[in-house]
Amino acid sequence: MNYLDALNKRYSVKKFDPEKKVSTEALFHILEAARLSASSLGLQPYRLIIVQNAEMIEKLIPAFYNPSQISTCSHLIAIVSKKKIGSEYIGNYFNHISETRAVPLESLNPFQVSISNHMERLTPEQMTIWADKQCYIVLGNLMFAAAIEKVDTCPMEGYKQETIDDILGLEVTKEKVAVTLALGYRSEEDEFQNFKKVRKPTEKLFKFI
Amino acid sequence: MNYLDALNKRYSVKKFDPEKKVSTEALFHILEAARLSASSLGLQPYRLIIVQNAEMIEKLIPAFYNPSQISTCSHLIAIVSKKKIGSEYIGNYFNHISETRAVPLESLNPFQVSISNHMERLTPEQMTIWADKQCYIVLGNLMFAAAIEKVDTCPMEGYKQETIDDILGLEVTKEKVAVTLALGYRSEEDEFQNFKKVRKPTEKLFKFI
Repeated sequence: MNYLDALNKRYSVKKFDPEKKVSTEALFHILEAARLSASSLGLQPYRLIIVQNAEMIEKLIPAFYNPSQISTCSHLIAIVSKKKIGSEYIGNYFNHISETRAVPLESLNPFQVSISNHMERLTPEQMTIWADKQCYIVLGNLMFAAAIEKVDTCPMEGYKQETIDDILGLEVTKEKVAVTLALGYRSEEDEFQNFKKVRKPTEKLFKFI
Repeated sequence: MNYLDALNKRYSVKKFDPEKKVSTEALFHILEAARLSASSLGLQPYRLIIVQNAEMIEKLIPAFYNPSQISTCSHLIAIVSKKKIGSEYIGNYFNHISETRAVPLESLNPFQVSISNHMERLTPEQMTIWADKQCYIVLGNLMFAAAIEKVDTCPMEGYKQETIDDILGLEVTKEKVAVTLALGYRSEEDEFQNFKKVRKPTEKLFKFI
């Protein structure tokens, strides 16, 4: 399928068909698109928790203001952002670059110093804002890949932060759920699938100079 | 091309071939992917400025800390986020929904009231954080579509905010550049194209529960 057709067919599902589960193969393709996401300085300041256990999804229902998607989806993906990128994290990143590209760690030193200095200058709040934005590139990639795989999605920001972090067992001094995405297949009862997509027309959205 | 192959081949270009321009057809496909991006509450709190005029791109060079991409790219896309989503903006949005879906405006009233109340409760800072995150979904879609179109990209956060807003003639009480993306074709001289992609391995990035 053409990718623009796929994006046109996607919409934020309000109710999934609880009987239909996303296959492991489709799920892994979608996750690979997330893994390949670009991120600022390549730091990938996040990890993904993929909730597939029915009991665990059930436990998460009270964390969401709208229970409709979470109580019917096949999988929930929580994109978890890092609250701190310290010298250990950056050190691991550069070891990884050095190993992957077979270049001496020393040759990367100027870049490592520059990134360390940059990250150290961020306040905790700036750090969170920066990390969360990178999570939204991942969110975009997940939805885009899912659309191509004909898997339906609904991105969700409407959850109780403390509750969801707690249920997922996060160390809240280090990380938090930045955004979530429900995966599954649209229910026949979801009337939103028949609604025309509402997007700003090109002449309002784009300016060419 | 398979989309995962496309994402594997993309990298953040350090130097573009200044002689190669992105075709109008490819550009419009990529922009359509941006237009179709999901956004929180469907509000699309952004617009895109596509800089294609060579003189205008030249003018923008001093706004970037690293001049390498901006001085060689074919197009620069500035994703501009809204600083305020007031009652007029929300009113226009609901008029648009009503027209597109041929439903009476009155029937949408509960949703409109709920969104208005939600947006009013946000501080200016929360509003900016929220709007900017939506811009990163657009950024993700632009890079994903460009990869499929075999157009190279480099996302860039490293610019002087006041300078770029000023050069692009933004009304800074209302909007700001949230992030930028350079488009073009990789230069043969860009050695980064030969480097192996560095991404966290699946076992580090994903947790299944």
